[in-house]
Amino acid sequence: MAELDDLTQRLRAFATARDWEQFHTPKNLAMALVAEAAEVVEHFQWLTAAESQALDAGKRAEVALELADVLLYLVMLADRLDVDLGEAARRKMVLNERRFPTLTRG
Amino acid sequence: MAELDDLTQRLRAFATARDWEQFHTPKNLAMALVAEAAEVVEHFQWLTAAESQALDAGKRAEVALELADVLLYLVMLADRLDVDLGEAARRKMVLNERRFPTLTRG
Amino acid sequence: MAELDDLTQRLRAFATARDWEQFHTPKNLAMALVAEAAEVVEHFQWLTAAESQALDAGKRAEVALELADVLLYLVMLADRLDVDLGEAARRKMVLNERRFPTLTRG
Amino acid sequence: MAELDDLTQRLRAFATARDWEQFHTPKNLAMALVAEAAEVVEHFQWLTAAESQALDAGKRAEVALELADVLLYLVMLADRLDVDLGEAARRKMVLNERRFPTLTRG
Repeated sequence: MAELDDLTQRLRAFATARDWEQFHTPKNLAMALVAEAAEVVEHFQWLTAAESQALDAGKRAEVALELADVLLYLVMLADRLDVDLGEAARRKMVLNERRFPTLTRG
Repeated sequence: MAELDDLTQRLRAFATARDWEQFHTPKNLAMALVAEAAEVVEHFQWLTAAESQALDAGKRAEVALELADVLLYLVMLADRLDVDLGEAARRKMVLNERRFPTLTRG
Repeated sequence: MAELDDLTQRLRAFATARDWEQFHTPKNLAMALVAEAAEVVEHFQWLTAAESQALDAGKRAEVALELADVLLYLVMLADRLDVDLGEAARRKMVLNERRFPTLTRG
Repeated sequence: MAELDDLTQRLRAFATARDWEQFHTPKNLAMALVAEAAEVVEHFQWLTAAESQALDAGKRAEVALELADVLLYLVMLADRLDVDLGEAARRKMVLNERRFPTLTRG
């Protein structure tokens, strides 16, 4: 099973088991998504560009879990909206490839 | 190949072909991530909970591409930090399952 | 009249005249606030620290209006919550001054 | 002295006394701004519209300090960009009044 579908199934079971679906409106999940994305930002806000590329192991592990939170809410939100997230991402990549063509030189 | 790894490879090639890696510091990507998450929020900010669950097809397609943008920046950021995003998400699920145990009734 | 109170009054009249109070729940205004803050971020996401300090006049004028949007939603949200924003800011300054004492050297 | 100018002066002195100006690039301050706005969002993300309008006193006091944080970073960012925040807000109000005319009925 595809990776994002698998996460979707697990998150659905997780919410059902806790009776949390009532809170998981798209509106609420969009709020949780931006709140988690901002927690990622907080880790980087006072760092220079160079420092942001050289996190120590402890900090990197913390940021990894924040990135995970963003992914989990993103997958839940897509599920609630009946959006195929992986398919949307691949479609957006194609749009980006057309929008920003690479220069070819002869 | 796993779905997120596949996106990672395509995004890496995309950035290399356009010489954009120079802009893709973790700090900058964290900013782009929150900006895209906020574009998702904008679609829902004046909607009621019920309206947020009943988007029409056109709006749903727009939101799908915004969710895609969030995923693409998330994948790029994880790649730049050398974080395995899928693995982090699965680890976070396990932590959440422990943190919020379900009630079992006899 | 204090500057923030004056903005509060004007924003209240603006919303009333357009029958928009129904949309201005604290929840919705919090979403609008973060969406506007993220538009500020967008202006800076690909800039270096140095470039962010040297915006040209046109860009600076654009960012000024984005900052204004953040302030307007902030004032509306405080008003809806019956929070005195100026007083809260002065209280927070005092807390910050205590939390981060300056070093005095003999 | 105008309220926002007064905050600007105090924040400038606060940063100088702690030698923090080096961290206060517009880029960094924009990140701090969105992070604080997202902390406001976190307070409201699981609340219904009605609940968001009926915070208890303790919660309201917490949110007041989060709103204060947003204002403080907003004032610092405007100062760093040499933007008159109060003037920008008043200018934006005029633009909004033109953009969204009220209906007058004869």
